[in-house]
Amino acid sequence: MITGKPIRIVSMGKYLPRQVQSNEIEEKLGIPKGWSEKYSGVSTRHHVTTESNADMGAKAAQIALDKAGLKLADIDMIISAGGTFDYAIPNQASVIKNEMKDGNKVHVAAIDIDSTCLSFVAAVDIAANMLDGKRMKNILIISAEIASKGLNPENWETSTLFGDAAVAAILQYDESSDSLFIKGGQRTYSKGVYNTIIKGGGLKYYPSEFPYDRELYSFQMNGIQLLRMAKKKIPEFMDWFYTDLPLTFKDTPVIIPHQASKMGMIIIENLYDLEEGQIKSTLSKYGNCIAASIPLTLHDCIESGEVKRGDICLLSGTSAGFSIGGVLIKY
Amino acid sequence: MITGKPIRIVSMGKYLPRQVQSNEIEEKLGIPKGWSEKYSGVSTRHHVTTESNADMGAKAAQIALDKAGLKLADIDMIISAGGTFDYAIPNQASVIKNEMKDGNKVHVAAIDIDSTCLSFVAAVDIAANMLDGKRMKNILIISAEIASKGLNPENWETSTLFGDAAVAAILQYDESSDSLFIKGGQRTYSKGVYNTIIKGGGLKYYPSEFPYDRELYSFQMNGIQLLRMAKKKIPEFMDWFYTDLPLTFKDTPVIIPHQASKMGMIIIENLYDLEEGQIKSTLSKYGNCIAASIPLTLHDCIESGEVKRGDICLLSGTSAGFSIGGVLIKY
Repeated sequence: MITGKPIRIVSMGKYLPRQVQSNEIEEKLGIPKGWSEKYSGVSTRHHVTTESNADMGAKAAQIALDKAGLKLADIDMIISAGGTFDYAIPNQASVIKNEMKDGNKVHVAAIDIDSTCLSFVAAVDIAANMLDGKRMKNILIISAEIASKGLNPENWETSTLFGDAAVAAILQYDESSDSLFIKGGQRTYSKGVYNTIIKGGGLKYYPSEFPYDRELYSFQMNGIQLLRMAKKKIPEFMDWFYTDLPLTFKDTPVIIPHQASKMGMIIIENLYDLEEGQIKSTLSKYGNCIAASIPLTLHDCIESGEVKRGDICLLSGTSAGFSIGGVLIKY
Repeated sequence: MITGKPIRIVSMGKYLPRQVQSNEIEEKLGIPKGWSEKYSGVSTRHHVTTESNADMGAKAAQIALDKAGLKLADIDMIISAGGTFDYAIPNQASVIKNEMKDGNKVHVAAIDIDSTCLSFVAAVDIAANMLDGKRMKNILIISAEIASKGLNPENWETSTLFGDAAVAAILQYDESSDSLFIKGGQRTYSKGVYNTIIKGGGLKYYPSEFPYDRELYSFQMNGIQLLRMAKKKIPEFMDWFYTDLPLTFKDTPVIIPHQASKMGMIIIENLYDLEEGQIKSTLSKYGNCIAASIPLTLHDCIESGEVKRGDICLLSGTSAGFSIGGVLIKY
């Protein structure tokens, strides 16, 4: 018997900037035609032109509010859940809130949660714990990510893999609903802490001493180490996560993974003997959109009817740090 | 009758880098002798020499663990609560965890919470909601902040005001204890969103297009606007926060405010007719240490005996965004 807390994803919204075809990137960077689809598994992705992180986030949030028939005044907390930001200070949630309709009239708390690619998953877990129907009835989570500015054009994999997107979700405490938050969890395996890194720009390589340099300021992945860790640690994590649940990873009807990379997706499929369509993928359409990948895939699965009310869904992935995390919900 | 959740701050730890006297800064930057103490209210503060944010955070965390007689394996979640970071990716909690003893052996989740200067307060609020004695029994919160790298030497106020520090606290769910988490809350007033800002380094002023420039990459405060907002909004916030509590702000035995600035502290004192010693200040000793200021002041008040078990304490302050927040605890 599946039990949980009566938390419901009421609505979701997304914003995508300009679509970029793989051949456009391949031509621009001198990459052989067809390389992106073959090696990164990405046909199209979206990259910002003039949009800021906050512009995109505010638009996605407004769509989610409108779909739910709610106003910003109905929201008890805004969480910006992501690894990229417009400014170091103030926090991103405050910048997004300021761009929203009624952002200046309504004084709802704006807080950031960052577990890089798992930020949305961590935010759902935390929000589900905060929602009690009294102090908090509705929490708005926004994952707005711009990956395209931190890519090194000499690195074919990252240049073709990453995309930009913003996705918002409203979580509601609703005892009358059949929806559930079942479980959340994350484990951080520090051995892989620097397998994914942007070195420059923080305090360690501070811009006054380390001026902009493509490699230093770009997203770096130690792909082989990452895949090795994922292969070993994902089964360990899933055993830990499912230990007290009345179902297994393999039985979970809908699995929405982080769209980390083509090889990352293949590893998960190969580790378990899963049914066709059990794992949802949007990698080919959107690439890896950091923390926005999981909610973007959920959003599109809801829109297409692949995820219906009552479906048990695992939102799970890996993130820089190196972490593996997940939340199990009854949508 | 004060009620709450049985959450106890078991122990705290701090790490301070090299102490810097005001006359050292005044001499170096050509500021008149005595200016810092007179206008910023700061006699001494600490600035890093070789320490990273993670070095400091890991040291403070280890002290808190040792004091509590706990090991990292007893911790169910690590929260890095601050506005500054070593790298944009991975998140700071992962970088701190990696520097800790047993950081590589124990796979506890490492997540960042950022509400700039209110990050520690927001983290206590969130941690208290996550702690249930089952899934989570102990949460380690670390506020490690390096402000000294983001200061413009031409700006006398910020150059003399800010300090670096790391503070850690272990929150425990303990039904046998008399300690309580009573209430938490934050409001974000977007009108003041850019009154405190570091413009450069994020996606909006990305380093490839906007190379390092002292003013662009330094902490900027619109002091007059901030003080005006604080004066107007602090009483509004306190009315909202205390509305359902059996005591008022004025009756709260211990008030530990963010050590924002000399004028900021005077405003709070002048708004309410408070008893001597009711408001705790470490501004003169440590300056403004961003999110580390509130826990640093709490830490020292516990050490000195100014805060004892059973004392009702408000941890409250303002942050960039512009937010006001607080948590009320029975220590």
